[in-house]
Amino acid sequence: MFRVNDNYLKLPGSYLFSTIGKKVSAYAQANPDKKIIRLGIGDVTQPLVPAIVEAMHEAVDEMGRAETFHGYAPDQGYGFLREEIAKKDYQARGCSISADEIFVSDGAKSDCGNIQEIFSQDCRIAVCDPVYPVYVDSNAMAGRCGEYDRTRGLWSNVIYMPCTAENGFAPQLPDQRPDLIYLCVPNNPTGTALTRGQLKTWVDFANEIGAVILYDAAYEAYIADDEVPHSIFEIEGARTCAIEFRSFSKNAGFTGVRLGFTVVPKDLKSGDTAVHGLWARRHGTKFNGAPYLVQKAAMAVYSDQGRAQLKEQVAYYMNNARVIYEGLKSAGYSVYGGVNAPYIWMKTHQGMTSWEFFDWLLERANVVGTPGSGFGPSGEGYFRLTAFGTYESTVEAMERIAGI
Amino acid sequence: MFRVNDNYLKLPGSYLFSTIGKKVSAYAQANPDKKIIRLGIGDVTQPLVPAIVEAMHEAVDEMGRAETFHGYAPDQGYGFLREEIAKKDYQARGCSISADEIFVSDGAKSDCGNIQEIFSQDCRIAVCDPVYPVYVDSNAMAGRCGEYDRTRGLWSNVIYMPCTAENGFAPQLPDQRPDLIYLCVPNNPTGTALTRGQLKTWVDFANEIGAVILYDAAYEAYIADDEVPHSIFEIEGARTCAIEFRSFSKNAGFTGVRLGFTVVPKDLKSGDTAVHGLWARRHGTKFNGAPYLVQKAAMAVYSDQGRAQLKEQVAYYMNNARVIYEGLKSAGYSVYGGVNAPYIWMKTHQGMTSWEFFDWLLERANVVGTPGSGFGPSGEGYFRLTAFGTYESTVEAMERIAGI
Repeated sequence: MFRVNDNYLKLPGSYLFSTIGKKVSAYAQANPDKKIIRLGIGDVTQPLVPAIVEAMHEAVDEMGRAETFHGYAPDQGYGFLREEIAKKDYQARGCSISADEIFVSDGAKSDCGNIQEIFSQDCRIAVCDPVYPVYVDSNAMAGRCGEYDRTRGLWSNVIYMPCTAENGFAPQLPDQRPDLIYLCVPNNPTGTALTRGQLKTWVDFANEIGAVILYDAAYEAYIADDEVPHSIFEIEGARTCAIEFRSFSKNAGFTGVRLGFTVVPKDLKSGDTAVHGLWARRHGTKFNGAPYLVQKAAMAVYSDQGRAQLKEQVAYYMNNARVIYEGLKSAGYSVYGGVNAPYIWMKTHQGMTSWEFFDWLLERANVVGTPGSGFGPSGEGYFRLTAFGTYESTVEAMERIAGI
Repeated sequence: MFRVNDNYLKLPGSYLFSTIGKKVSAYAQANPDKKIIRLGIGDVTQPLVPAIVEAMHEAVDEMGRAETFHGYAPDQGYGFLREEIAKKDYQARGCSISADEIFVSDGAKSDCGNIQEIFSQDCRIAVCDPVYPVYVDSNAMAGRCGEYDRTRGLWSNVIYMPCTAENGFAPQLPDQRPDLIYLCVPNNPTGTALTRGQLKTWVDFANEIGAVILYDAAYEAYIADDEVPHSIFEIEGARTCAIEFRSFSKNAGFTGVRLGFTVVPKDLKSGDTAVHGLWARRHGTKFNGAPYLVQKAAMAVYSDQGRAQLKEQVAYYMNNARVIYEGLKSAGYSVYGGVNAPYIWMKTHQGMTSWEFFDWLLERANVVGTPGSGFGPSGEGYFRLTAFGTYESTVEAMERIAGI
């Protein structure tokens, strides 16, 4: 008789955003007259920019003609895109990363979830608390997290690095020795970033203890501060200890288009085994390439025209971030993030729990956010809003919050 | 110090099609004047049909306008597509499958590779020999296959079901008790199919011993014989023992577009645990939905216009299959498959090994096929050709083979 992977049965509840979705649907059904403003999930709202739309139309036409039709893409991604990424995202910033160290995929979420597979079952992970749920959940599914303590909201075999207002939301080097360290910079959910100096401490630590930093840079396009690196590979020593995840979701509005990439430097090794070869093997065995037309669309992200249009789009969202930041401040809240990131992290109203505040905000202001406790126990008492709404709805949400 | 998943290090060589790709590249570089015909990898060559191209253009335009822009898709796929699949692929054939049992993904390869994750580590797999490499490789990566014997080309903990000319390439019920049984019908690589009666035997066996049939129906569109079911859910009892994988790659030319789906019936349970919930959790945690524009394009696959155009496209490839089948027959080869499948399976020339024949065919006829031994030891002495080339190149390939 077959048996299921019982690690799945240890997972608490359902995936955070599914739970939110269900709560919002139930509220909307019960209150069909209310206009709900969604600043919860990090989904973009602005349409694809003209340069990308044009590139997509061209690629669709190519797919409709025998001479220019494209079947299976190379596993690792088309060379034209990997060369462009290597040149413009890395070499232009002084990072020594080559095209064959880049793996194009259907998005950073898939890669962040799948990367743990190529590491040993007994690797111990360290995560920030609060944290994007995928890192922990994907390791829990693989049996690496031990047992879940429902009361404390913690897994027995995970090293948690609390990030709270007290430490400026910057994780501190852990006392225990992790094998895999997940860092998301600029951070989801807290919206904070690490400077070059702070990140150097992590790279040195990882190299010293032989750990791998799994660096999620999905929000890189929102960095405004010159002291914050856009890639971990700007830091000396990162080639021997880091893997970086990038996404086109937030810099180009690809949440519904799906594209991302992962950088695995060839210098990252366990003994004689290069991690690069293992990820290549995984990619080649369980993935069949990203769509040609999506990879062509991504080329427009790097064109002069596309860059200019996307710069405006990012500025639009960052203006929303400013509106939220200032709106909440003047409504008397403690507010963080929102400068190098599209996320605003706030303390809840009058000591409410995160979920109490979620319900309160949904009912009183018809505004949806994300409960901080959904990202980990140190997120309790906090709440996340995103800058990805429209300007109009963002302004209205702030007016409503100020009025309750 | 971190360690890698050493199950990866047990895997023999690199992924089959990567090896072929490298060999062909090397030959092409050394012989720039030769015109190579590729009938190796199962990649299509005909362009997307007009109905699909039109649907894609419309969806791209929608993505370029704020009012019709689509961000993150529902994890499981858009309802509009899942309803259409349930109705036209299943209910129309009398299969009791509902839209919420369908999970849309970026392709059947990903799903076939990932499905093993939701089963227990100690599940024992049974596969046909020869077999599509992804089933075994993905389980080997997870540590389920034991040790690889390089001499025999077999894993110590896999139950192999030989499929050779002697048994008409139909797998026999194994003596041992597997937990997970991979069946690909119509078969890749042998091109053979199972009738309703044959498949009923497997469903009864799986229900009796408590095994799951992982049914890969990627080539369903090529079924010509009324006795061959298009879905395992046409067989009574399948809802308690089967998961089915489908692809848009071969029926609609989506190899470079990427779309597939997996059907997990809610009646498939281990004790009280429904497998459906586990796959939903995996999908929600490690995948972020298939692109909106690709799901819209798939709707055109089910429209009257799209169906008519695709019927012609499948007929085009099946005519190639006939050309290959007859061409090889008259050149004196033993030939199988090609009737309910786009694959032709043949015995090699004069007792050559599969790789000897690969090299011989590449050098003498400049035709690329796939060595049967790459699919498993019982594939030794066989060779696979695909019907996915153009008609002209298929005819030329047969002329060349007849002439050597």
